[in-house]
Amino acid sequence: MLFRGSFSLICNPESWSSCLLSPILLAPTLTAEIIAIGSELLAPDRTDTNSLWLTEKLNSIGIEVKLKTIVGDDDSRLEETIRDAVKRSRVVITTGGLGPTEDDITRKVAARALGRRLLLDEALLDGIRKRFQSFGLTMPERNSRQAMVIDGAEVLDNPNGTAPGLFIEHDDTSVALLPGPPREMRPMFENHVQPRLESKAGHLRVVRRVLRVAGMGESAVDERIAPIYTRYANPQTTILFNKSEIEVQLTARGRTEADAETLLDKVSSELEEELGHSIFAFRGEQMEEVVGLRLSVGGYTIAVAESCTGGLIAERLTDVAGSSRYFIEGVVAYSNESKTRTVGVEPVLLLEHGAVSAPVAEAMAEGIRKRAGTDFGLAVTGIAGPGGGTEEKPVGLVYIALASEVQTEHRKLMLPGDRQLIRWRASQAALDLLRRRLI
Amino acid sequence: MLFRGSFSLICNPESWSSCLLSPILLAPTLTAEIIAIGSELLAPDRTDTNSLWLTEKLNSIGIEVKLKTIVGDDDSRLEETIRDAVKRSRVVITTGGLGPTEDDITRKVAARALGRRLLLDEALLDGIRKRFQSFGLTMPERNSRQAMVIDGAEVLDNPNGTAPGLFIEHDDTSVALLPGPPREMRPMFENHVQPRLESKAGHLRVVRRVLRVAGMGESAVDERIAPIYTRYANPQTTILFNKSEIEVQLTARGRTEADAETLLDKVSSELEEELGHSIFAFRGEQMEEVVGLRLSVGGYTIAVAESCTGGLIAERLTDVAGSSRYFIEGVVAYSNESKTRTVGVEPVLLLEHGAVSAPVAEAMAEGIRKRAGTDFGLAVTGIAGPGGGTEEKPVGLVYIALASEVQTEHRKLMLPGDRQLIRWRASQAALDLLRRRLI
Repeated sequence: MLFRGSFSLICNPESWSSCLLSPILLAPTLTAEIIAIGSELLAPDRTDTNSLWLTEKLNSIGIEVKLKTIVGDDDSRLEETIRDAVKRSRVVITTGGLGPTEDDITRKVAARALGRRLLLDEALLDGIRKRFQSFGLTMPERNSRQAMVIDGAEVLDNPNGTAPGLFIEHDDTSVALLPGPPREMRPMFENHVQPRLESKAGHLRVVRRVLRVAGMGESAVDERIAPIYTRYANPQTTILFNKSEIEVQLTARGRTEADAETLLDKVSSELEEELGHSIFAFRGEQMEEVVGLRLSVGGYTIAVAESCTGGLIAERLTDVAGSSRYFIEGVVAYSNESKTRTVGVEPVLLLEHGAVSAPVAEAMAEGIRKRAGTDFGLAVTGIAGPGGGTEEKPVGLVYIALASEVQTEHRKLMLPGDRQLIRWRASQAALDLLRRRLI
Repeated sequence: MLFRGSFSLICNPESWSSCLLSPILLAPTLTAEIIAIGSELLAPDRTDTNSLWLTEKLNSIGIEVKLKTIVGDDDSRLEETIRDAVKRSRVVITTGGLGPTEDDITRKVAARALGRRLLLDEALLDGIRKRFQSFGLTMPERNSRQAMVIDGAEVLDNPNGTAPGLFIEHDDTSVALLPGPPREMRPMFENHVQPRLESKAGHLRVVRRVLRVAGMGESAVDERIAPIYTRYANPQTTILFNKSEIEVQLTARGRTEADAETLLDKVSSELEEELGHSIFAFRGEQMEEVVGLRLSVGGYTIAVAESCTGGLIAERLTDVAGSSRYFIEGVVAYSNESKTRTVGVEPVLLLEHGAVSAPVAEAMAEGIRKRAGTDFGLAVTGIAGPGGGTEEKPVGLVYIALASEVQTEHRKLMLPGDRQLIRWRASQAALDLLRRRLI
């Protein structure tokens, strides 16, 4: 099953490690299709993001996604889609349509497409009823339809919702019916579907690593690292520009995960030599996780004073579990009065320099540090727009400042983008200023 | 062409407005499928955005998108996809795969799927050759494949690239093969495809409206409103559960936009009668926009004291442009000291009741209101997890409180979900408490 495609004779099957750089040999074998179900997914403002996550997971175990379908709550189209997919591909995964309402047609239609009966599972019904009871609720009658099971299917437990998943080995094809909400779908896939598919997929492993870069432009990054990554076909490199972060994605294939990791280690250390501290994450971590870890390890505490970011920096820092160890206090000093009252900015500074200025940013950083008694004080003031800009101080002008016991420093930024993007970029730059100080 | 399905004799074709509430008459809109072609679109970090743009365009002329497919450069899967789509739908649009390389298989495979020959169009070949010459280049031999035309197809001019599009009336179905790059695809659709489809679709218009609900469960909402929406096939209703919001999407079809809006008005006012103030948005607005508007209109000001939400409420409120009119100050009082120091919570309350308690939530709301001198003070304290829970105060326990000049009130919540979800739900419940007070 493992090697269906072209076979390279240079490789000795007894010694796979010599073949690691041969992409032809390692081309993925099992083919998959993903079907996203729900009329709402056909709206002009909705994309199906489940399939992206699933594709990454499937690729990582050597399964290639060959086709994706998004289909509404439409019996006949869904039936045809499932029937075609099962004929063509060895793995078929559906997401959505397992809820308790009339619209939720996946169970019923999949049963028909596979030519199997739909049976009521009493134990499952009991479990769903108990789940409602644990929240002090009575199960609505309609939820009983979630206990209908396709004949021959295994029921996949859903600890995060009422909709159980189903897994069916149908002829030569594995069919998984998963719920639509990501926080239900993802653990179900990881705990129940992935292990089953892994044993089917054989031992080819695909490992992805995501490096994140802050403080550089996309072209600048590409110019500096292209001479490195173009020398390697394995791992494959993709550069992605996302808000103000640049992601460098490396995808390596190997006989084992360790083989793939070895390849990734080699290339990422070459990239690090070139980009240095601009790489803030080597395993896809968020900036706030990286900063939080450094604060934690150093035993430091932090307080934040924000104006234009409106709480975003505090929100990002406290989004990390365990952040109460280092995050002490945040102030969203939106009005001038609040900057004086709570952060201790002298009114004369506001009068002389304006709220969006380097002296005010520094005073905010020092003021919040003093108030909270922390090792660091981090501050942002700026104009996120769309209104409020002037010729002298246009939309996108942002000052960030960092105060510690020994020094206070600031940076002046001109950030492009709309309100949301300027706020996000300002928060990222402020956190990056702190990160570089902590190195 | 307009009315294919069942025809209701109650309607007088001279006076369409009398038929607006007859769903049977208006149900059979034209149905479309969109096929995005290209292996690169199956990567874990790529979404097909052409289909979103096309869906909006198609919807606006009364054509409903029933299915979307993303297929790689895979002859047999693409052929089957096109063949199925043409059988099922009256409009089929493909994007991509019209380039000059081996990978660009759309023309060849579409011809096979439609059972038509592929012919060399000498005039077209000449045009492509001239386009290259105009840039001072010689046409590479492989570009001649772009002059291959499916028998019976109209050639759609591409002023922005070398790949011409094709338009075929095949049996009862309009098939358009468009290039992948948006700057080539969009003008080609607008100039050549849309006019052809408009005459086929008649003058039917489709309008969507999104209602959002807070403070109720999905099943509860569905049970209460199903008796209403099931009476109407037009508008169609879809219910969506998203974080702690429930979206009710209504899609109406009418001869004019005004007709469709009339239908939407009728059904949404019936839904409002049933759900009352639990509906917080009738046009898809976010909670923070609704709250912001009410604060603005009333001339009220607000300050926020947050513990477990860590700045999320401030961040959401200030995400709205113009929020500086009503948002004065926010404090993220993460540590107990900060709750006392900055929000004025008496240490004895923290000692006696603990930080996560109703008295502390109320004291935080009153304290931040007093500090900032605002009309309202809004506060949250709770346990977002994953750590920090006890048997008495488990993860998910959250108190929200709202203080004004005349009264202070609180709510105790037990929120399910992970850290992110508990934080988001707590922020939503707090904003909803304020919204209901402002009604």
